[in-house]
Amino acid sequence: MTIESSFAARDRTAHPLDIATRLERSSNGRLHGATAEDYWNMTGPWGGTTAATLLRAALESPSRFGDPVALTVNFCAPIARGEFFIDLREVRRNRSTQHWSIELSQDGQGVAATASAVFAARRETWAHRPAVMPEVPPPAALRPMSTEGRNAWLQRYDFRFVEGEPDFGPRAEGALSGTRSRVWLSELPARRLDFLSLAALTDIFFVRIFQVRGRMSPASTVSLTSYFHVDETDLAALDPQPLLGTVDSRVFTKGYFDQSAEIWSPGGALLATTAQTVYYKE
Amino acid sequence: MTIESSFAARDRTAHPLDIATRLERSSNGRLHGATAEDYWNMTGPWGGTTAATLLRAALESPSRFGDPVALTVNFCAPIARGEFFIDLREVRRNRSTQHWSIELSQDGQGVAATASAVFAARRETWAHRPAVMPEVPPPAALRPMSTEGRNAWLQRYDFRFVEGEPDFGPRAEGALSGTRSRVWLSELPARRLDFLSLAALTDIFFVRIFQVRGRMSPASTVSLTSYFHVDETDLAALDPQPLLGTVDSRVFTKGYFDQSAEIWSPGGALLATTAQTVYYKE
Repeated sequence: MTIESSFAARDRTAHPLDIATRLERSSNGRLHGATAEDYWNMTGPWGGTTAATLLRAALESPSRFGDPVALTVNFCAPIARGEFFIDLREVRRNRSTQHWSIELSQDGQGVAATASAVFAARRETWAHRPAVMPEVPPPAALRPMSTEGRNAWLQRYDFRFVEGEPDFGPRAEGALSGTRSRVWLSELPARRLDFLSLAALTDIFFVRIFQVRGRMSPASTVSLTSYFHVDETDLAALDPQPLLGTVDSRVFTKGYFDQSAEIWSPGGALLATTAQTVYYKE
Repeated sequence: MTIESSFAARDRTAHPLDIATRLERSSNGRLHGATAEDYWNMTGPWGGTTAATLLRAALESPSRFGDPVALTVNFCAPIARGEFFIDLREVRRNRSTQHWSIELSQDGQGVAATASAVFAARRETWAHRPAVMPEVPPPAALRPMSTEGRNAWLQRYDFRFVEGEPDFGPRAEGALSGTRSRVWLSELPARRLDFLSLAALTDIFFVRIFQVRGRMSPASTVSLTSYFHVDETDLAALDPQPLLGTVDSRVFTKGYFDQSAEIWSPGGALLATTAQTVYYKE
């Protein structure tokens, strides 16, 4: 029995994200987990599950302090189907912050992903919210994007595009779409929004090059940074999903482009902001 | 003679940034450097020099491959005046990318800053520049901000604000300024723009909380991520400085706020984009 099927067998009622990101401690002290078919992307696990798995290592550490504030994930190499190991190191602990270094590797393959995470004890302070959620039609007024027959991870979410739904239909040679998308997002099946869900969601936005050119081409996120603007208390008090995601890019040049995104609660709170750099081949 | 004065004595003609970020190999194989008074901030070295120093460790490695694409710096603890050590590790090298892990520590103080950097061989591809430089008055039409008597690092730059110059004058109780600033930036003395200059510049933007409230208060960058949209060839072909910087924030809550910025060449190329999360006390 593979590790994954062993996890699944024990957790028949668990959400697929909990199974995909599950970690256990090996006899040698390292954490280990396994890739999940439920979140498979084109040639490896979807980056959102990798980000959530790396964060989970710190979230579940007995010495965890506070809530995640910043997470950077570097995707170093493809992750193969099967088992992986995670090495977690507390780099520094201060009075109100904790810095983690996290690495994912596979036997005989070296390091496939690294992460740094900053945790902090958050407390009430002066607050200010200059950014406001864009006014968009409600999710009920929009149809869900069809994910049937597509990569497994897409089927773990309900996508309702307000604007910028990828259009892979015929288009004039060289015609480009806009870079921005706005989309209502829900987890399938539903899941209580926590930092695992949120970390995964920061990588949910289709790489902009597909959107702009209206076709798939070799491209992959190389580095992803997410900032969380909520703590556990805020998350527990939130309205249910769907969440509003907005994403845009500014420059595509010499094989790399930037991509920035926001995730808003249905009530208009900015939950997370992210930035990433994405490799593209041609 | 301190390390710093030894560096300075040998480099009378060197730019202060080259001196501040200079690294030498110790007999034990570690890199070491020293903080520079020329870039001193309130209670430690300015974060821009720390970012540039960490990047420089990888830039000058004999096994360096390609140019920096992404840099994340986590500021874990204050850096004290004096000597520091840098440990550089190549985490992974692929056909076209290289991943680095970099740590700065001081004797008896543990790790003060960590960084991850992605380098890549960049080559001509399809390019697209949906973001355009804002139309603003030229630097010659604007007066430089006075930095006299202020923290040393401020005196290493010429700041000419188009909008959002910090106003620390009297204001009505609770009155808030906008979060956005736009500013022309030049290094003082002039320096050829390279990745060291650019890495430092990504931390040049005053933390937005000062700007919004019109007063100084305890605040410091905790994690800074920068993406570079140029390679060495592009940098060599650029018009001289000044560069146009734009910066904004979206949410201040429970002790942390986000801050995002862009750095544009005078000719309108987007050279770098950054995001950071900043701690504030009250």
